[in-house]
Amino acid sequence: MADTYAVIMAGGSGTRFWPASRPERPKQLLPLAPGDDRSLLRATVDRISPLVPIERVLVVTSAALAEATRADLPGLPEENLMAEPVGRNTAPCVGWAAATIRRRSPEARLMVLPADHHIGDEKAYLQTLATALDAASEGDLVTVGLKPTRPETGYGYIEVGEPIAEEVWRARRFVEKPTRERAEQLFASGSYLWNSGMFFFRADAILDAIEEHLPGLAKGLAELDRAAEAGIEDSAVTEGYGELPRVSIDHGVMEKADGVAVVPGDFGWSDLGSWTTAWELSEKDENGNASGSDSVLVDASGNLVRAPLGKVVALVGVSDLVVVDTEDALLIVPRSRAQEVREVVQRLSERNGEPS
Amino acid sequence: MADTYAVIMAGGSGTRFWPASRPERPKQLLPLAPGDDRSLLRATVDRISPLVPIERVLVVTSAALAEATRADLPGLPEENLMAEPVGRNTAPCVGWAAATIRRRSPEARLMVLPADHHIGDEKAYLQTLATALDAASEGDLVTVGLKPTRPETGYGYIEVGEPIAEEVWRARRFVEKPTRERAEQLFASGSYLWNSGMFFFRADAILDAIEEHLPGLAKGLAELDRAAEAGIEDSAVTEGYGELPRVSIDHGVMEKADGVAVVPGDFGWSDLGSWTTAWELSEKDENGNASGSDSVLVDASGNLVRAPLGKVVALVGVSDLVVVDTEDALLIVPRSRAQEVREVVQRLSERNGEPS
Repeated sequence: MADTYAVIMAGGSGTRFWPASRPERPKQLLPLAPGDDRSLLRATVDRISPLVPIERVLVVTSAALAEATRADLPGLPEENLMAEPVGRNTAPCVGWAAATIRRRSPEARLMVLPADHHIGDEKAYLQTLATALDAASEGDLVTVGLKPTRPETGYGYIEVGEPIAEEVWRARRFVEKPTRERAEQLFASGSYLWNSGMFFFRADAILDAIEEHLPGLAKGLAELDRAAEAGIEDSAVTEGYGELPRVSIDHGVMEKADGVAVVPGDFGWSDLGSWTTAWELSEKDENGNASGSDSVLVDASGNLVRAPLGKVVALVGVSDLVVVDTEDALLIVPRSRAQEVREVVQRLSERNGEPS
Repeated sequence: MADTYAVIMAGGSGTRFWPASRPERPKQLLPLAPGDDRSLLRATVDRISPLVPIERVLVVTSAALAEATRADLPGLPEENLMAEPVGRNTAPCVGWAAATIRRRSPEARLMVLPADHHIGDEKAYLQTLATALDAASEGDLVTVGLKPTRPETGYGYIEVGEPIAEEVWRARRFVEKPTRERAEQLFASGSYLWNSGMFFFRADAILDAIEEHLPGLAKGLAELDRAAEAGIEDSAVTEGYGELPRVSIDHGVMEKADGVAVVPGDFGWSDLGSWTTAWELSEKDENGNASGSDSVLVDASGNLVRAPLGKVVALVGVSDLVVVDTEDALLIVPRSRAQEVREVVQRLSERNGEPS
């Protein structure tokens, strides 16, 4: 059987976990999963190890994060860290990784996974991944869809079509992040799943699909292939990567391709999208506070507290707050407004005259 | 004219400004006055310098705080720092200081001042002090009374009697901290002033009054006097101070003595009793926030923020909070409940098995 590779997309520079996350220390490099002191990236690599040994894990990140990412994954072979000189969304990233894998192993299957998700049930997760990989063996482009638990407007949806095999369905349609009204329709219909952003395909299958639907990207990837064969891939990437079309793999390929399948997953998934989610996943005391042992809570409920070990955080008479303290910054925001931390990052960026 | 001395009572170890205040760094040693980087003690000594040069300022503090107090007042003569081995409330403190001053200058007048108050109008303050000192010249025991601005239950009150001289009245009665109902009566009557805790008398007059009303204390002070004459005051204090009766100068002497006078004061006084008061005195932005330039405020109003210089404090969607951040502790409490910080200090003390 052909080799299986994993491609971990670890180039994110999100702002939603400020002040814990910073440009040089983004979400995927932080230990944001409750009760887990590994980074989300490290946890992702560890989690799939029963299916994919680290020697066949490629991690795609930005050049700026390459060093920190390498430090986070000491077992990762040097040549498996792929540093994008500039971010061009996910299609170039997936294409570049698929081309790299095809050179190593022409028949290989690959799974593309985000580096910054939380998985509650690892056993169920690995079973779903194995099913999706199987489904990809014959050339289908496979995604994992998650059963919606609310009419979320922050995710894309996939309409489930006819069954193809056990636990595998044809994907009839991709729907981008919907409006509130549309999200409620999709949620109520029962025939839509959330797009997990996890993809499974043979390297040749996705590259064929890119050739068909994103010929500009295919041309650029072919140049990188030639450069790699000539031993000058690094300089070709440095010079040419920024010229690749900026498009997502969802929009550029999956939505347009034939032979797209979806495997439903139910494994305690969370995209850990904000401090609110971190609170939801955390262990809480009888008053709904998720805080460390150094906290002093007096008539306080429903709060999330993150602070350096040994720092005393005293909350008196406050409820439903997110309190995140770091050495040089402190955030206080109601849990229900945690996404507005972006506004803070924006203002700090303007104040410092720097990109956030 | 006889020398004038000041006795600054600087032995407090309050808990209301936690986490800024700590046992080893109590309120009077902190720069709590808005816009003033001097400690409250240092500001007190500086403020009275037009009336009393530092050579005639005695500072009474606890042995535990002696070193920190000395460091805070580098100009204070070594022999002017009086360290109580144990706190015995204010009567022993005032008595010991008065006896010390009488040995230096038998005719001296002294003013007794708390180290941790805030004065908004220094010119008016100095005028009131001069008036009170004058009133004390003939042997009266004089206090400064403050015009109440609310029916406060946290202060003592003084009933104003007949006038004695310009701006000087007989004090008819001292009322200890009243109940809410009684405070409203006192406030409404218009004939009561707040007891400021500032006292003015000739050294011999207060020592005579102590002899009359607190003979046990007078006996102890006489022993300290004899020890001082024998050059062994330090060991006498170490051994005997803890035996002095534990009583306040208000309750032990002022409430009982004849010839007690009150000078009304109106000089922007505040006892800086809590973080709430600190907010009230602070300069605020158009949304009522008192915070430093390192803060990022998004839809935030009425908050007090204290944090180390350079630390970014981001408040999003929160109102009327006190946020005090230090290197090893963070406090978040609604302004209206700031006095409950005592509960935090209590719990920490229990956790550490230490007195707070």
